[in-house]
Formats: sequence, C-alpha cells, structure tokens
Amino acid sequence: MSTRYKVLAFDVFGTVVDWHGSIAREVDAMGLGVDGATFASAWRAGYRPAMDRVRSGELGWTRIDDLHRMILDDILEKFGVRHLDEAARRELNLVWHRLAPWPDAVTGLRRLKSRYTICTLSNGNLGLLADMAKRADLPWDLILSAEVFRHYKPDPQTYLGVAEIFDLEPAETMLVAAHKDDLAAARACGLATAFVERPREYGAARRDDLGRDHPFDFHATDFEDLAGQLGC
Amino acid sequence: MSTRYKVLAFDVFGTVVDWHGSIAREVDAMGLGVDGATFASAWRAGYRPAMDRVRSGELGWTRIDDLHRMILDDILEKFGVRHLDEAARRELNLVWHRLAPWPDAVTGLRRLKSRYTICTLSNGNLGLLADMAKRADLPWDLILSAEVFRHYKPDPQTYLGVAEIFDLEPAETMLVAAHKDDLAAARACGLATAFVERPREYGAARRDDLGRDHPFDFHATDFEDLAGQLGC
Repeated sequence: MSTRYKVLAFDVFGTVVDWHGSIAREVDAMGLGVDGATFASAWRAGYRPAMDRVRSGELGWTRIDDLHRMILDDILEKFGVRHLDEAARRELNLVWHRLAPWPDAVTGLRRLKSRYTICTLSNGNLGLLADMAKRADLPWDLILSAEVFRHYKPDPQTYLGVAEIFDLEPAETMLVAAHKDDLAAARACGLATAFVERPREYGAARRDDLGRDHPFDFHATDFEDLAGQLGC
Repeated sequence: MSTRYKVLAFDVFGTVVDWHGSIAREVDAMGLGVDGATFASAWRAGYRPAMDRVRSGELGWTRIDDLHRMILDDILEKFGVRHLDEAARRELNLVWHRLAPWPDAVTGLRRLKSRYTICTLSNGNLGLLADMAKRADLPWDLILSAEVFRHYKPDPQTYLGVAEIFDLEPAETMLVAAHKDDLAAARACGLATAFVERPREYGAARRDDLGRDHPFDFHATDFEDLAGQLGC
C-alpha cells in the first residue's frame, strides 16, 4: 500500500512541535506580568496576516524570523510591556527556534525515516528549522522551507516544489499536517495527504476540526500511529 | 580559540565523499568496456565548464543532476558506449547520489557537530545531497546547496548566503574544503577557512596542491584532525 510514496513532507509548527506550550512556558518564566498562554496565542494570531502581506506582494520576501519580530513588537505594546530592550526582544523572538516537539514526534519520525525520506515543508526559515532540529534531535533527511521556494504555504509552488526537489511526481509525495487547510492546498496540487490530530495545539482552547470526515488519505492520532499505518 | 565560529560549511564532492573512487568502481562493475577511473575523471572534467555556462548566464538555472546528465551523454559518445538506454543512463547518472564518504568523514562530522552547527555548501542539488546523506549517514544539521541561492560556487552569493541563513557575520562561518580556489573565494567574502588534504581525490593522479603554504586559518589532514584542532 505504501511503497507508492517516497517522500513525507511535514508541516512543523503545531504538527511536529508544540508552539503554544513552549512559548507560554518561556513567557511565564520571564515574569513579564502577562499570561503566557494568552501571549502565545496573540503572537501566533499575527502570523497568517503577516504572511499574507508577503503572499500578496505588499511586502517583499521576508523571513518568518523577521515577521515574528514585527508581530512581537506590536503585541508587546498591546500587552503594555515596554521595558524590554533590543537584546531581550531578539532573544525572546528566538523562542521559535527552541520549540519543543510533541512527545511522539522524535520516535515517530525515526520509524518513518526507516522507510521513507522525511523532510520539513514549513513556513519557518531555514536557520530557525535547523536550530530547532539540532536542539530537539529531529532526524530530518532534508530541511525544506518556504525560504527555498520564496513562496509561503499555501502557495502551490511550495507543495509542487517538494516533488520537484526530489524529481518525483506529486502523488509520490505526502504532506503530513495537523491543519486541514494546508492539506487541502497540497491535495489540490496532487500530493498525498495525512492528517494528524494535535488536540492541544492551541493549549486549553478546544479544537472542533479534528473529525475524520475529510478527503485526506490518512488520519492519524500521532506520528507513531502514522508510522504503523505506513508499514514502519 | 574556536568559540568565534558558529557554523562550519562543508564542500562535499572530494571533501566529504570520494567521487573518483565511487564512480570508478560502479563503472567498472557495469562491464561497459571502459576504464572506470578514466571515465570518472572525464565526467568530472566536464563539471566546471558546464557550471560556468550557468554562471555566465549562457544557460538558465540548471541543476547539477541535469548538468551531469548532459556531460554523461557526451562522454558516453566519446568513449564509444552507445548501447545504454534511457533507463540505464538515468540510473548511472544517479551514481552521484551514491558517492561514498572518506573513511574519517562520518566520525569526524559527528565530533564537529557536538560543538558547531555543520552544514553543506555544495554545488550539488538538494535532492542529490539528501539522498547521499541518507545513504551514507552524514549527520548534517542543514543541507545547503547552490540550488538554494541560485548561484554556483565560487559566486559570492553562496558563501555570504550561508552566513545570512544563520543570521551571522561571515567571520563566524567557516568553509571547510579540499580545494584552495573554493577556500580563496570564501576568504575573499570574509569567511574563515579550513583546508583539508584529500590526496586520493583524483585517484592515482598525484596532487601537487596539498602544501601548507596558504593563507587559510586551518590545515587538516582529515576531519578527525580538524575536530581536534577545533576543540571537539
């Protein structure tokens, strides 16, 4: 069943790593007088609009590190945190390089790597993804990023770009993600798709989009479950 | 001494892997009636002129896989090998994805990785470098390629691109290579440089460019020696 797939490409933020919990913990530990979970959600909420400014051409190519920093300065102001100096802001912005993987991620990826080529397909920039992988021991065969294609997901150049990098047909490539809009865009490009449940991605906020009523090729509760379904 | 460097970027063909020996062995095993070592040298000899056609703008952006194939078709004709069909040519061209590392490469890279971020900076395309790393267990933190920068070495965009990817100054980045022209171009961009002796890169042909009379920051006999010099 699964030998038709050669490359598994993984969304990263939320799918491989727990951005909400990692950021909430770090912000809480800083003692800024703001609620870490609320701050994490606000930071992430600025992400899609910021990328859309790049996708629409309003902004030239801008890395996620720089978009994160723009959003950070904005929300620090909104949360009334004005005393952080430049060095502290730079350091806090790098929390995105230090996100912790979900408990099943490293072991699941190792199993999947034994049979498939595993790569990232993330809007995170290459330096961010490399720092994250080194710190968390994520065993990627290749780190691919929107930065390589100069297009952000869900632009088709990103999904088709993965197949092209490996000289494969789109159907030989599978996107693995916890987000149905990402998967739908990959599916429209002809890629195979696997949805992974990440019920705690937004912290305590309940997700109502985890149902199995979707058109994707696989539905997995975590990476270990996906590895089993893919014969690893 | 060495904490000033954060990222070590490695040339790959000849520096990490033995292209000459790997190709000679595979061609000899095919029984084509040509001398494998001579064939390997001829294939590689076409590489720099082909890249220069891209660097000059005569050819649009073309991956090494495709340049290797153009050269292969040309030298098969010159060596009088006309019976190989399309599938066999495609398979032979992929020998560049299967090159074997020098004996010290994997253990040396593991030591260097314990203290530094290690990445490739190769003219090989991303798919080639990922296949090679997976097969040979090369423990890169990040695979960087001319394909990311859309410039071939020795264009400065490649060396400066490594520093930019990691948000570093050029002097915090070191190129490790067995080729003095590559190192000289990196040094002109402000990168630190380490020369590694690979006396057998061209097989039995003697190299006369291994001397220590050069301006580079380090001179190592192999990656284990470099790891020792860099405090790993």
